[in-house]
Amino acid sequence: MTIIEWDDHVALTQSAPGEFAASLSDGWVVGGGVNGGYLLATIGNALGRTAPGKPDPLSVSAYYLSAAVPGPATISTRVIRDGGSVATLAADLEQGDESRITVLATYGDLGRLPDDVRTTAEPPVLPPREECFSNSMAPPEVREMAPLMDRFDMLFDPACVGWAVGAPSGEGHIQAWFRLNGERDPDPIQLLMVVDALPPVSFDLGLMGWAPTLELTAHVRARPAPGWLRVSHRTRNVAGGMFEEDCEVWDSADRLVAQSRQLARLPRP
Amino acid sequence: MTIIEWDDHVALTQSAPGEFAASLSDGWVVGGGVNGGYLLATIGNALGRTAPGKPDPLSVSAYYLSAAVPGPATISTRVIRDGGSVATLAADLEQGDESRITVLATYGDLGRLPDDVRTTAEPPVLPPREECFSNSMAPPEVREMAPLMDRFDMLFDPACVGWAVGAPSGEGHIQAWFRLNGERDPDPIQLLMVVDALPPVSFDLGLMGWAPTLELTAHVRARPAPGWLRVSHRTRNVAGGMFEEDCEVWDSADRLVAQSRQLARLPRP
Repeated sequence: MTIIEWDDHVALTQSAPGEFAASLSDGWVVGGGVNGGYLLATIGNALGRTAPGKPDPLSVSAYYLSAAVPGPATISTRVIRDGGSVATLAADLEQGDESRITVLATYGDLGRLPDDVRTTAEPPVLPPREECFSNSMAPPEVREMAPLMDRFDMLFDPACVGWAVGAPSGEGHIQAWFRLNGERDPDPIQLLMVVDALPPVSFDLGLMGWAPTLELTAHVRARPAPGWLRVSHRTRNVAGGMFEEDCEVWDSADRLVAQSRQLARLPRP
Repeated sequence: MTIIEWDDHVALTQSAPGEFAASLSDGWVVGGGVNGGYLLATIGNALGRTAPGKPDPLSVSAYYLSAAVPGPATISTRVIRDGGSVATLAADLEQGDESRITVLATYGDLGRLPDDVRTTAEPPVLPPREECFSNSMAPPEVREMAPLMDRFDMLFDPACVGWAVGAPSGEGHIQAWFRLNGERDPDPIQLLMVVDALPPVSFDLGLMGWAPTLELTAHVRARPAPGWLRVSHRTRNVAGGMFEEDCEVWDSADRLVAQSRQLARLPRP
């Protein structure tokens, strides 16, 4: 039943305080590894069970150590400081003797934040979904290399998808509508995956290929409203063999619910 | 001799592998604590001595736990993974039994990065320095509350400094020329301070008062050229009692040498 696919993929079994077993789904493979956003959401799920009364990520910083593979993984979490309305937490994801990701995070309760909104950022301007370029139109060889493409509907702005047909815009910008299979509504943990679900923005610079993340920090700023998300990726500083990728996630109520920035390596020429 | 003031303030004594003693200068006090950027640079200095051949920060993520005070501090560093051209490191700054800051970082050698630059970001447009509003013009009561103002020349763009006279622009933007005392030239470690040296950008929204940082991640992208830096702070997402502050640091050669984003709490009304 597709409606619970996501929840099954990020499910955990707790074996001791702060110790969780996960089973990394081969449905999130892309190229030679497992999607970093899916891994981060799985870790985020474990962190959400670590500090009582603080289920939601406010800020999560992940340092990627080695490429994960589908199958068993252990996630160890610990409380660095639990004080007042937020807790600072740490987590490590390991497979056998290999460390995959190490994380610091601030968790709290998004439902208890004040209601003020003075955001000046503007939502991405996207054409209606029926005018967008669906990931379901990707050629079979792409879908075979990237099974994660079958996990969601990702409807690309046609203005930013020239890279798919060999004509990148060169602007360093990709944006799309996003919704998980089964019309699974977004939640704060899911947003940790959404910020790293689109293809690398380096595609739009004509630099196709794997762009390994060194570091990704995501801020989750509100519980997303039900429905489609809009996701925008940009890069402005491409130098020294690396680039930053800035992501914004907007919900159906026009709220900027998550922002992230990652530092990634450019694909090797 | 002012020319070595900075180097004295971030100096360390190594007591064991990965164990460093620091003396936090009262010259970096601002309000009730010690400036977070100065603390981050001091930690960054310790991390630069942790992995052989990897002296430079590429990415540093700091989670702030409690306000530091001037005086002795210990910094413990450890190598999480040292592989290839970069190392992933961790650090903790403590004073007595109190944890102040916990950090994850990627270090490498900025001198060994490829020379490619395809940056599309544009340097901040600032008036000539002689037309800017100098921090040395701040009233005595401000300088008494914020001794850090005596550590550097900070020349504010007059268009973004209305908050100093009760007339904030409301745009969420502050920018300034920056140079340490003694014409101390910038270096990669120093940039970890520069990204958090300006007043909180919330001042430009008319929200005066302390804006405690929850998390700050800085990317250092190149060794800065000698001379004055230009520093820009912006916020676009002010909601739920928090705001993000994006910083760019540009060097005298028009290179975007550092970017940071922090998540901070809005001052209490």
